[in-house]
Amino acid sequence: MTNNRSSSNNDDDPNVVKESVIRMMTRLAIEYKAVNLSQGFPNESPPWPLKVSLAHSVLSDGGDNINNNNDQLNQYSPPCGRTDLRSSIANYYRRFYEYDNISPEDITVTLGATEALASALRTIGRPGDKCVIFEPFHELYPSQCKLFYLKPVYVTLRPSMNNSDNNNINDNDNDNENHSNTIWTYDENELETALSDAKILILNTPHNPTGKVFTKMELTHIVALCRKYDVYLITDDIYEHMCYGNDTRHIVIPKEFPELTDKTLVCNSIGKSAAATGWRVGWCLHPPHLRDAYRGIHDQLCVMAPHPQQFACLSYLSLPDEYFINLAKKYEKRVQKLKNALVSVGFKVIFPQGAYYLFVNYKSVSQLVDMTSVEAAMYLLKNVGVACVPGDNFFGNNLEETTNKYLRFAACRSDKDIDNAIQLLEEKLL
Amino acid sequence: MTNNRSSSNNDDDPNVVKESVIRMMTRLAIEYKAVNLSQGFPNESPPWPLKVSLAHSVLSDGGDNINNNNDQLNQYSPPCGRTDLRSSIANYYRRFYEYDNISPEDITVTLGATEALASALRTIGRPGDKCVIFEPFHELYPSQCKLFYLKPVYVTLRPSMNNSDNNNINDNDNDNENHSNTIWTYDENELETALSDAKILILNTPHNPTGKVFTKMELTHIVALCRKYDVYLITDDIYEHMCYGNDTRHIVIPKEFPELTDKTLVCNSIGKSAAATGWRVGWCLHPPHLRDAYRGIHDQLCVMAPHPQQFACLSYLSLPDEYFINLAKKYEKRVQKLKNALVSVGFKVIFPQGAYYLFVNYKSVSQLVDMTSVEAAMYLLKNVGVACVPGDNFFGNNLEETTNKYLRFAACRSDKDIDNAIQLLEEKLL
Ligand SMILES: Cc1ncc(COP(=O)(O)O)c(C=O)c1O
Ligand SMILES: Cc1ncc(COP(=O)(O)O)c(C=O)c1O
Repeated sequence: MTNNRSSSNNDDDPNVVKESVIRMMTRLAIEYKAVNLSQGFPNESPPWPLKVSLAHSVLSDGGDNINNNNDQLNQYSPPCGRTDLRSSIANYYRRFYEYDNISPEDITVTLGATEALASALRTIGRPGDKCVIFEPFHELYPSQCKLFYLKPVYVTLRPSMNNSDNNNINDNDNDNENHSNTIWTYDENELETALSDAKILILNTPHNPTGKVFTKMELTHIVALCRKYDVYLITDDIYEHMCYGNDTRHIVIPKEFPELTDKTLVCNSIGKSAAATGWRVGWCLHPPHLRDAYRGIHDQLCVMAPHPQQFACLSYLSLPDEYFINLAKKYEKRVQKLKNALVSVGFKVIFPQGAYYLFVNYKSVSQLVDMTSVEAAMYLLKNVGVACVPGDNFFGNNLEETTNKYLRFAACRSDKDIDNAIQLLEEKLL
Repeated sequence: MTNNRSSSNNDDDPNVVKESVIRMMTRLAIEYKAVNLSQGFPNESPPWPLKVSLAHSVLSDGGDNINNNNDQLNQYSPPCGRTDLRSSIANYYRRFYEYDNISPEDITVTLGATEALASALRTIGRPGDKCVIFEPFHELYPSQCKLFYLKPVYVTLRPSMNNSDNNNINDNDNDNENHSNTIWTYDENELETALSDAKILILNTPHNPTGKVFTKMELTHIVALCRKYDVYLITDDIYEHMCYGNDTRHIVIPKEFPELTDKTLVCNSIGKSAAATGWRVGWCLHPPHLRDAYRGIHDQLCVMAPHPQQFACLSYLSLPDEYFINLAKKYEKRVQKLKNALVSVGFKVIFPQGAYYLFVNYKSVSQLVDMTSVEAAMYLLKNVGVACVPGDNFFGNNLEETTNKYLRFAACRSDKDIDNAIQLLEEKLL
């Protein structure tokens, strides 16, 4: 039999996409009854008004229509999302960022940030196109590149002293990670080389796993490079409300860099900031010339975000400002508390400026020093009772300076869980 | 500037995926205040127990866990779906099909049939692979092929006399469509030629838009060809419960053809049979050797189906048998009623054996005879007040015998809507 089909599916096939390691750690956490600081989702509820609104939308037969015989909220919405929801999202950008220049037609409601990103990658990328990703990264990005046959190219973020020149990269055994004014930076030349023949740059700020919040100066540089090399920018803004300290703020690219609007897609989700990761609602802001392409892909990939959740999302978007301020405060406290504990048991910790993770160097912890990052995570799981994620999961370049060095802890779980984890860490590691 | 990137996105780019025409007709139906018989979704509510269960899952903080501080139902579930839900789905196959041989590990819960199909196509297909699709088709299939760079190949279903030889295909002007024992059939040679160098066959039974339910004999032939040419079979079973008449039944391929189990992926959804198209819950049954690949893709594409809806789906799966029997009866009545009206105003109608569409020939309706199918649909929208879908949307081969001949009406809307549509059709077309 002769035919021209591709090879069959097996483990060696580089096009096979694997299950998330982070979610595997969650499974193991349950199996070992460990405190789960691996997957980055809260175990507290979404705000009450959202829950009531979702229940209401399901139980009522319609909500916004005259005909009683006409259920709408349990049926398909327009694939791009309810019109009132897209208007509310536009208002949300006015409210938080004074970004006035945005129309509901520039917005598509998606199945969380994950599908927003997948649709963005497929809208822009074609097989073989290069997609630049800062490492450490959320594993989603390289996996989705694979999904659509794009070629990921990694630019490494490294710990460096806040006041030092960005280009002054430290060697493998630097001790910057012990200093309180250490931040994560990238090498400008490395980024420029990577972007010079790339189609896409993915930018996640506030950044998972490092907690880096890209500064206006850095973004100015990045935007200039995108323009110079005609690169599309896809941003992942899901931690936008979790910025810590007075100097740190989230920047929405098309608002502050209108010159890149026509090449920027902003992906977002209510999952983290509404504590509703299971609801699957997010969105993408896209430039007008990509609207039809983006919506076509989104539609054919999964039609639409669940309709009752879209309705409830209207309540989320009208929560008072205090909700969002308290959100940042709550997580900052937890991050601080967990950081102190991790430092006290010997980890080297760079304090995050945003998001809610601690990406820490375990080479200074005597029990873990000789282990690979997978071994270290398994040790903590089995012998300490705390689940985290092995750092190697976040790197693509396999550099010696980053391999087997880091673990990621999520500080988004309830105070009770974090306190339990701290107690276990102090009991078993000190 | 030189680089090796793909061309930019524009309308001529064959890789751009377009928005659904069916959903465009829904938008126009609203704009023109027409009765919407275009998109195939009900305007009646899901059964009450499902709605209560969904509301309960959202309002309670957990449902199945001891720790009150531990919201689960609003947060991520395992990406492959709740374990209890996957067990219930396995039971469902035992209950309706005596299909015992199925484990929860052979099941992944998806975002409706749409994402189930997308993940299936990406699991099996590689760029350039041929994917065979019966036409007329649901537009989803060729669009999703495009999404993953597969090459759709169409095999045409044609009206033919029930007792005639399947190979005895009728000419363009046949009058079979006037006979009550006319069914839709395919040419065996055409199918074999198409499959001989294909990677995938997509099979939708009961079939949208024709209402064809593939018989055991036809499926035996199809399965034999898949085995002969080593072709994967992806089935779309979403209309499984809508089979009409005593002789018509739905066949689940891996149950009745275990010899093809390792090459079959069964896609399904509660959207149509729970009247919950907006909930976005479906599933895929996959052979063990494709489990990890399938789940990896599903995970990276959109993580998981909304968690509250997964919980409510447990209630759906435990609805009594009468619910499913009444479902078929209800839709059969509506299909019959609408069929009679369409025949009375002059359409040629082949009565569907399943699903809830009428795919009718308008060439015998004097007002429409000289129109393209888009013109005919627009005429009915603007002058009659009834929205349907132009038939050309369902064909890929552009054969003269199928072009500008058909319209699709959905009979899944409330009795009131169908009665209104019938009244308008009789008023304006007779
Ligand atoms: C950076 C980042 N992007 C995207 C996601 C997934 O978001 P969603 O649940 O909205 O799909 C996560 C989840 O952890 C994340 O950390
Ligand atoms: C044959 C067929 N498959 C799939 C779908 C989409 O199903 P879901 O809403 O579960 O994604 C439809 C919707 O009309 C359909 O007719």
